Amino acid sequence: MYSLSLIKGLEKEMKQSMKKLNVGVAGATGYTGEELVRILARHPRVTLTYVSGKEDREARIQEIFPSLEGKLDLPCKPLEVQEACRKCDLVFLSLPHTVSMRFAPLFLKAGKKIVDVSADYRLKNEKIYEAFYRVPHEDASHLAEAVYGLPELYREKIRTADLVANPGCYPTGAILGLLPGITGAGLFDADTIVIDAKSGVTGAGRKAEKSLNFSEVNENFKAYKLFEHPHVPEIDQELTAAAKKKISVVFVPHLLPLNRGILSTIYVRLKKKMNTAALIAHYQKRYAKEPFVKVYAGGALPELKHVAHSNFCGIGIRVDASKGIAVIVTAIDNLLKGAAGQAVQNMNLMAGFEETDGF
Amino acid sequence: MYSLSLIKGLEKEMKQSMKKLNVGVAGATGYTGEELVRILARHPRVTLTYVSGKEDREARIQEIFPSLEGKLDLPCKPLEVQEACRKCDLVFLSLPHTVSMRFAPLFLKAGKKIVDVSADYRLKNEKIYEAFYRVPHEDASHLAEAVYGLPELYREKIRTADLVANPGCYPTGAILGLLPGITGAGLFDADTIVIDAKSGVTGAGRKAEKSLNFSEVNENFKAYKLFEHPHVPEIDQELTAAAKKKISVVFVPHLLPLNRGILSTIYVRLKKKMNTAALIAHYQKRYAKEPFVKVYAGGALPELKHVAHSNFCGIGIRVDASKGIAVIVTAIDNLLKGAAGQAVQNMNLMAGFEETDGF
Amino acid sequence: MYSLSLIKGLEKEMKQSMKKLNVGVAGATGYTGEELVRILARHPRVTLTYVSGKEDREARIQEIFPSLEGKLDLPCKPLEVQEACRKCDLVFLSLPHTVSMRFAPLFLKAGKKIVDVSADYRLKNEKIYEAFYRVPHEDASHLAEAVYGLPELYREKIRTADLVANPGCYPTGAILGLLPGITGAGLFDADTIVIDAKSGVTGAGRKAEKSLNFSEVNENFKAYKLFEHPHVPEIDQELTAAAKKKISVVFVPHLLPLNRGILSTIYVRLKKKMNTAALIAHYQKRYAKEPFVKVYAGGALPELKHVAHSNFCGIGIRVDASKGIAVIVTAIDNLLKGAAGQAVQNMNLMAGFEETDGF
Amino acid sequence: MYSLSLIKGLEKEMKQSMKKLNVGVAGATGYTGEELVRILARHPRVTLTYVSGKEDREARIQEIFPSLEGKLDLPCKPLEVQEACRKCDLVFLSLPHTVSMRFAPLFLKAGKKIVDVSADYRLKNEKIYEAFYRVPHEDASHLAEAVYGLPELYREKIRTADLVANPGCYPTGAILGLLPGITGAGLFDADTIVIDAKSGVTGAGRKAEKSLNFSEVNENFKAYKLFEHPHVPEIDQELTAAAKKKISVVFVPHLLPLNRGILSTIYVRLKKKMNTAALIAHYQKRYAKEPFVKVYAGGALPELKHVAHSNFCGIGIRVDASKGIAVIVTAIDNLLKGAAGQAVQNMNLMAGFEETDGF
Repeated sequence: MYSLSLIKGLEKEMKQSMKKLNVGVAGATGYTGEELVRILARHPRVTLTYVSGKEDREARIQEIFPSLEGKLDLPCKPLEVQEACRKCDLVFLSLPHTVSMRFAPLFLKAGKKIVDVSADYRLKNEKIYEAFYRVPHEDASHLAEAVYGLPELYREKIRTADLVANPGCYPTGAILGLLPGITGAGLFDADTIVIDAKSGVTGAGRKAEKSLNFSEVNENFKAYKLFEHPHVPEIDQELTAAAKKKISVVFVPHLLPLNRGILSTIYVRLKKKMNTAALIAHYQKRYAKEPFVKVYAGGALPELKHVAHSNFCGIGIRVDASKGIAVIVTAIDNLLKGAAGQAVQNMNLMAGFEETDGF
Repeated sequence: MYSLSLIKGLEKEMKQSMKKLNVGVAGATGYTGEELVRILARHPRVTLTYVSGKEDREARIQEIFPSLEGKLDLPCKPLEVQEACRKCDLVFLSLPHTVSMRFAPLFLKAGKKIVDVSADYRLKNEKIYEAFYRVPHEDASHLAEAVYGLPELYREKIRTADLVANPGCYPTGAILGLLPGITGAGLFDADTIVIDAKSGVTGAGRKAEKSLNFSEVNENFKAYKLFEHPHVPEIDQELTAAAKKKISVVFVPHLLPLNRGILSTIYVRLKKKMNTAALIAHYQKRYAKEPFVKVYAGGALPELKHVAHSNFCGIGIRVDASKGIAVIVTAIDNLLKGAAGQAVQNMNLMAGFEETDGF
Repeated sequence: MYSLSLIKGLEKEMKQSMKKLNVGVAGATGYTGEELVRILARHPRVTLTYVSGKEDREARIQEIFPSLEGKLDLPCKPLEVQEACRKCDLVFLSLPHTVSMRFAPLFLKAGKKIVDVSADYRLKNEKIYEAFYRVPHEDASHLAEAVYGLPELYREKIRTADLVANPGCYPTGAILGLLPGITGAGLFDADTIVIDAKSGVTGAGRKAEKSLNFSEVNENFKAYKLFEHPHVPEIDQELTAAAKKKISVVFVPHLLPLNRGILSTIYVRLKKKMNTAALIAHYQKRYAKEPFVKVYAGGALPELKHVAHSNFCGIGIRVDASKGIAVIVTAIDNLLKGAAGQAVQNMNLMAGFEETDGF
Repeated sequence: MYSLSLIKGLEKEMKQSMKKLNVGVAGATGYTGEELVRILARHPRVTLTYVSGKEDREARIQEIFPSLEGKLDLPCKPLEVQEACRKCDLVFLSLPHTVSMRFAPLFLKAGKKIVDVSADYRLKNEKIYEAFYRVPHEDASHLAEAVYGLPELYREKIRTADLVANPGCYPTGAILGLLPGITGAGLFDADTIVIDAKSGVTGAGRKAEKSLNFSEVNENFKAYKLFEHPHVPEIDQELTAAAKKKISVVFVPHLLPLNRGILSTIYVRLKKKMNTAALIAHYQKRYAKEPFVKVYAGGALPELKHVAHSNFCGIGIRVDASKGIAVIVTAIDNLLKGAAGQAVQNMNLMAGFEETDGF
């Protein structure tokens, strides 16, 4: 149907000329790390050259995740900074909170770029970090320079950042759902925002914990960490910055008996009369150029299965004009737009790739 | 260890002297009907004498529900009013909405007591019924006499009622969560109540419907029927009656990928300063004598598994004093306290039994 | 409708005359323990006077399991043998394997009856116990006296036993599915029996274990412990005893992503020509008087939901006459007929109650 | 890091020179159709130019499957053969059984290549087709020419075929698990093969059916269609052809409460003594060059999550030498290697692409 030899020749030539970005994943065996490895293994512009993980025994990454067989062949050992620096231009830190901040400075010092998937560089105020994560911050000196990795807010800063703090899963869905209504003049009353969020279980990480045992979660549903979740100050910080006025939300997370996805139902009071169509139009305008945000038309609402295994954030909107309230529903895959996907989106920006490469 | 023959003799004597209440279940093959049959089959004060169901072929009820084997042996055929009247003193109508109102008058005319599990007699205003259920009401003459079957609100009226309209599943969880805060002087701002409710799938009935196919619901979560759910006017009607002032809530239902249970997260603004302990104390006082309402102490929150397969409504409370808001979480088994269990609780009251008999 | 005062009088009289059996549950906070407590709390012939559990902090049992509220009020502390002996006539040991054998002798010495839900007294040969459970047996002297608590096999012995070894969950479903075909002349080839078994997750206990994390089990399915499961020698022991000839089965367990139930698909070769109807008739005859075994008619097959939350074992049978093989499907609730339910059935026999009391 | 402009130039040049294959999907709105669209939308060598579906209203495919937004923009209307022929070189027929055979001849006549995902061209014997699918075959004249699309068996024939009959999901897992043991001299006794298979619910299609309602399937597990499943003759046909002797298996399918995946546990008798390592080595040799078959080393077993969302077939093996039996466990994603993935693998062969393109 076409000249195969010509194409093969071009391909070869192209591959030789294209020096790919060498990247590594520290903490590859958690749920987010696994997704990072999966995306990076087929990303056309990077070579995954290094992975680390805290497994009992050494293993090849394709043995730990059998579906990588044939796509990747790398050892997976405990993190060694020097080796990682030797092999990578950019490193994803998919480490537990409070661990990332011990390693990030070492990579930065070696001139490497970092996307930190942990919470360690998200909060600008180290006092708030300590209040919510219950440990002193060990690398506060880098907090100012770290860029909060929500491309829809900080795209230009991310392009030139050395250290990107990848947003939390709940904050991603919450902030994207509220941004168009709180910036500028502001359509929403800033003092009465309620976010009722529901997350799948992978959000809690790959842990041995009785409360996460299948039989405890399956056929169950519950609210947890009311008013105490460490994502609350993160949401408040970013909404406050975007609104240029103090915002403090009511946020209640719940645990869904499913693997992937966060659905946030957001309740806001409208400052002036507005119907569903008008509010949707406002959101669609704000997000018109965003490759990974989809505002639903006609009052349709996103469901978790619409976004599962994708880097999209779906947003649906309904206004009850008689009560003057709007309900905004956002849906993301917590492991992708809520973690690994957004991290790769950030890397794409940092490396000058197309923002959608690899998806 | 004790004189078995004496006990056996007494048992026999007692059984002979105790004429049990004969009851029937119309619509025994739906999820609520199945639960009704299961409870009634082991209820110490009733004899289940009649069941009907809309199955293709005639079958014994214990063939349709194999776990009833050895506990019950009844034919299950399409509903015949005369036969049911001959065999029963009280009939549960577990029929689809809009069907109950065709049969209820016939049973009432024959002097039978009815617990109607459908929505047909819950709304006092037939215009609202028609707006939300999209059919004219065919038996509006009985609306006034029907008692809304929430024992925590109408216990005394239920005792003497001939026709009890068993509450909807969402309204049960919502109203019980709000009652203590809206009655009397009223602790909550009546104009800003938000109810974010999440229901298991049995709430949708035993239906052939593409959107209820396992693969559509499993690993999925969504909001649905925003501002349009027919349970909204039911909640508003009862809260308004209890508060003696107009209440109109914001209510958003969601579909959970699990079989049983409704968890409602309710957001209210407090009219005066109050902390968590004080609000809990207020609720505990209101519900102190309720056999099926449990207000959790110390800010603990109910989970669906706490109430599954029980007739309890669990209520948990947290106040964010700085914002002046309270979050109230209620949990029920939608098939029990939200349907069949509450129906039997109502029957117990109507027949003069202990309210907890059969549970 | 009847003389309520007469009934109440009789009830009172009866209750006074009936001295109930005092029972305790050691290990009440596991899944089996929880079910034991739930059944015993409403069992008409026993008083649950003692529970123990290995919780971090002391708690009332109704706080640990909120649905027991109003039905039970007992402290739940670490096991104290003397207190348990003082308060109970019979004790259920719902302790981990290898722990039961440390406590059973103490209760037996104090003259108490025991139903041991662990595996410690099931295998008659302590060498096999040590090979499969990897610890020496510490109370081998009681192995001979312990009665294997499968009422369908050992009903008369159980009635007079002091120590009943409650069968494992897999063996219950497997043995009941095979018994009628291997006893007497034997309809099945004893050398080619294959048991493909699938269990819900509660069978693994209430544990903090990474492989039991919701996200690992949900949307997953796997075979495990091929040829190594400690229930294999238990099945072989009992089938060999029943058949009066050596039987050694091929047994492969699998982990189902659901809470409750074991379905076993059993493949056997028929020694002589026989059709589905004839084999069903043979099974129905064998189990005609069994209150908790239901052989399905007409080639119908049991499903897990038929037996969930019940003490039944459902058995379905199909013969492929052309190949000379039969497929037998058995279904049980692993926590009831496979554990707590069967334990109470055994207690009923030991105490001279009706075998079905409490169900 | 490298010359971006050079790469972009090469890319452009290459894209212009590479005329892609135009493909269509008839029946794009079922589960298999959805997966086909998803894979083809990002396949580097094809352009998806046409999709059809039986939806009530016309819609764009990216509205039906929101996660395709930005990747695809095509109308989805009822199938029109002429339009499809105009737009496509190759068409996937993802239509219900008995519907494909009405359309396939029209496409073939127009000179189009077809991958038929239905069952219509799998069975060579139209009498057997009629016996199992209960309709006469309407296009028996093409049965001989149709190639059974299992690349591991018929790779060379597929390359030149015009009509490929994509294998059923159960047969794919069963045949791949048995092939190395039945071909040539044959390691397995051909008369005693037992296949105990368990499938996720998407295998039943996107249907409105009471028995597939979430609440019926969730927390349930059952065997179904014993000895009657239409995949039985398909398995027998291909095993018989491969073994060059009559094979007739015992096959019992079960329904798993999860979305995706088939795990088959296969029991065979070994004709001569052999241990686990030797049998694994034999399998690894047979499949050494297969890009999508992975034989696990060391007795490890595949789980469904190892293969979910991939085109792999995982195979694990254990031998019980004392009994002379082997257990072979195979795992596939029923929508990928069991349907859409294998269909694209076949297309890759038919079009001369790399077999792994698009995965």
